[in-house]
Amino acid sequence: MATATPLAGITVLDFGQVYNGPYCGFLLAQAGARVIKVESPTGESLRGRSGSARPSFPFRMFNSAKQCITANIKHPEGRQLILDLVPQVDVVLENFSPGTLADNGLGSSVLRELNPRLIYASGTGYGGSGPYRDYLGMDITLQAMSGVMSVTGDADSPPTKAGAAFCDILGGAHLYAGIVSALYQREQTGQGAVIDISMQDCVFPALATQLGTYFQLGHQPPRTGNRHSGMALAPYNVYQAKDGHVAMICFRGEHWLRLCDAMGRPELKTDERFARTRDRARNMDEVDALVQAWTSTRTKTEIFSIAQSAGMICAPVQTLDDVVNDPQLLARGTLAWTEDKWGEQSLKFHTPIRFKDMDTPSVPDVAALGADSESVLLEFLGLDAAEVAQLRDKQAI
Amino acid sequence: MATATPLAGITVLDFGQVYNGPYCGFLLAQAGARVIKVESPTGESLRGRSGSARPSFPFRMFNSAKQCITANIKHPEGRQLILDLVPQVDVVLENFSPGTLADNGLGSSVLRELNPRLIYASGTGYGGSGPYRDYLGMDITLQAMSGVMSVTGDADSPPTKAGAAFCDILGGAHLYAGIVSALYQREQTGQGAVIDISMQDCVFPALATQLGTYFQLGHQPPRTGNRHSGMALAPYNVYQAKDGHVAMICFRGEHWLRLCDAMGRPELKTDERFARTRDRARNMDEVDALVQAWTSTRTKTEIFSIAQSAGMICAPVQTLDDVVNDPQLLARGTLAWTEDKWGEQSLKFHTPIRFKDMDTPSVPDVAALGADSESVLLEFLGLDAAEVAQLRDKQAI
Repeated sequence: MATATPLAGITVLDFGQVYNGPYCGFLLAQAGARVIKVESPTGESLRGRSGSARPSFPFRMFNSAKQCITANIKHPEGRQLILDLVPQVDVVLENFSPGTLADNGLGSSVLRELNPRLIYASGTGYGGSGPYRDYLGMDITLQAMSGVMSVTGDADSPPTKAGAAFCDILGGAHLYAGIVSALYQREQTGQGAVIDISMQDCVFPALATQLGTYFQLGHQPPRTGNRHSGMALAPYNVYQAKDGHVAMICFRGEHWLRLCDAMGRPELKTDERFARTRDRARNMDEVDALVQAWTSTRTKTEIFSIAQSAGMICAPVQTLDDVVNDPQLLARGTLAWTEDKWGEQSLKFHTPIRFKDMDTPSVPDVAALGADSESVLLEFLGLDAAEVAQLRDKQAI
Repeated sequence: MATATPLAGITVLDFGQVYNGPYCGFLLAQAGARVIKVESPTGESLRGRSGSARPSFPFRMFNSAKQCITANIKHPEGRQLILDLVPQVDVVLENFSPGTLADNGLGSSVLRELNPRLIYASGTGYGGSGPYRDYLGMDITLQAMSGVMSVTGDADSPPTKAGAAFCDILGGAHLYAGIVSALYQREQTGQGAVIDISMQDCVFPALATQLGTYFQLGHQPPRTGNRHSGMALAPYNVYQAKDGHVAMICFRGEHWLRLCDAMGRPELKTDERFARTRDRARNMDEVDALVQAWTSTRTKTEIFSIAQSAGMICAPVQTLDDVVNDPQLLARGTLAWTEDKWGEQSLKFHTPIRFKDMDTPSVPDVAALGADSESVLLEFLGLDAAEVAQLRDKQAI
């Protein structure tokens, strides 16, 4: 099979930190762009977390497939290197604290003057305009601010965070979307653009169901745990299986009929208490008890298999052990286990932006801090090894 | 200000259902594409949920700014209309149950034969390849399958869903990203593509922190509620305020020092028990009690304001009331309150893909079911009003 590289020929300077920016850079690299990750001379904070030469899993996941150079943007010569590189690249992306690049003489207007075709893309907690533009934001505080915490968890427990960094990944996916939109536009106009992605903006649409309920009732109802936020659908819950849990919902009447058959309880199909959606909602406790009585006698895999054969909407609550060995993610090539250059079994993640019948580029092991500084500075700026060594001695890179 | 319309000139047939596909179509429309939403003659299920002529908030949020036509793809003449439209459009997007369009003679190979420049984009629960390719998936079951539920909630409560439809929105954002990548590629090659986005693939990277902890420990630790998944950072929690809650984390040592000053407790800065990150993690209960003692005497807005002035990472846990009136979302124009055509105050949502110093297109009120069928079929296929009426009589549209 051929390899899908829609962004072949595009060069990116990636100043990403932690998840949001680095995920965007990862998507660009996997789409065929040449992505040069720029770190401070001490390296991005995530690189060092594991305390070993082999960087932490999150760092490897988001930064493999990038070239790694260092530049000290607080040093005049380090800053100058970036200014010299900018005319030769297509994209600069960053998710520093608001204003960091501008405070160091590398703001969007300076860089776009050097290169009018440049796409300058910023990902921040709250965006580059408005009263909160200078505020710090990270995934957990965005979960708070966006309203997500207020609708997660039980009525009698405090507002709860989702245990996954959705805000960061939503921000990174939209940052990529903005960059590629601007690349497409540049084909028509010859001009670059400044992209301004706010995590807060990106999370809002995920509250669609809860906002629908809120506007319908005129107020925010109590949290409903794993039940439907409007308490309008049943079955809709997480049920105990013999060896864990399964999530199941009956979205349409036919899903309930199929479930009754799957449970070996065809008589329930004509039971008045459960006939219509509103009946099942009114008798939610009974419905949940019936489903639970069935699920508790089966393993989560058995239930999943039966449910999918019957055309129901159901899935096992997978643990992380299950996820890293998930047959679907492995079959699609989204995940792959390989031995890495440190001699360890390593889980490689590939882009979710998939072209049918095309492979995605492979993911090499992550480069060491500054490993590509010499070759990149030679290729783009004509610096020789002695000049690069001097810059290193001065802590400019 | 000028209006950002990077995709001006692009035409889309949007077969989206509920959130995933429709969000993608919304992003395309707000980027300047002409998006024609195709519904069955009875309308998309989400349109009717509110039971009134004014569709539900989620339907309005994702489908305003689109033209609305109907086509019965199970009727030969309805199917033929789609086949006749395809040579004149750039993108077909859909998130039906796997195989629905192909089963009705509208699969990607048929459509791309009619139009080799066509980008055919599918969003599904598990993707178009692999053993689960035919399985039904919705947001809640993807939260189960992806591992997100297994890391959300408390150690002594069941696995918990996030109360926001992150999987759908992540899927829709990646679907948009794939389409625009293919549009960019088409500028170079002249060829379209088939995009295959799996929600399961898209959620995996959001587990970065939890997977990092899992690989470091060699097993999955118990759920930690609102605390850090590796129990390695404190403060990192949701704290009670006088009028609600705030989320706060101290990511670096300086954040802790700033918090001590903000709390009026400078002596804590030199307290050995809290000196290093590992010390604060070891004494997490005491740290949380100290923070809580302070937050409980202030409103969440006061705490947010103090925290942002001091350079801490903190946010109020906003309710839905707070969110729909959020000063930042309103100032950025992400949200706007306007009177709609039904005479009601209506919250309008605008795209998170923002170009700096450019307006995004305005969002008109959502069109009635089939409102644009006549004008679209006249413009693209030359049908007159009588021919459209005949098609309607036959239930082909």
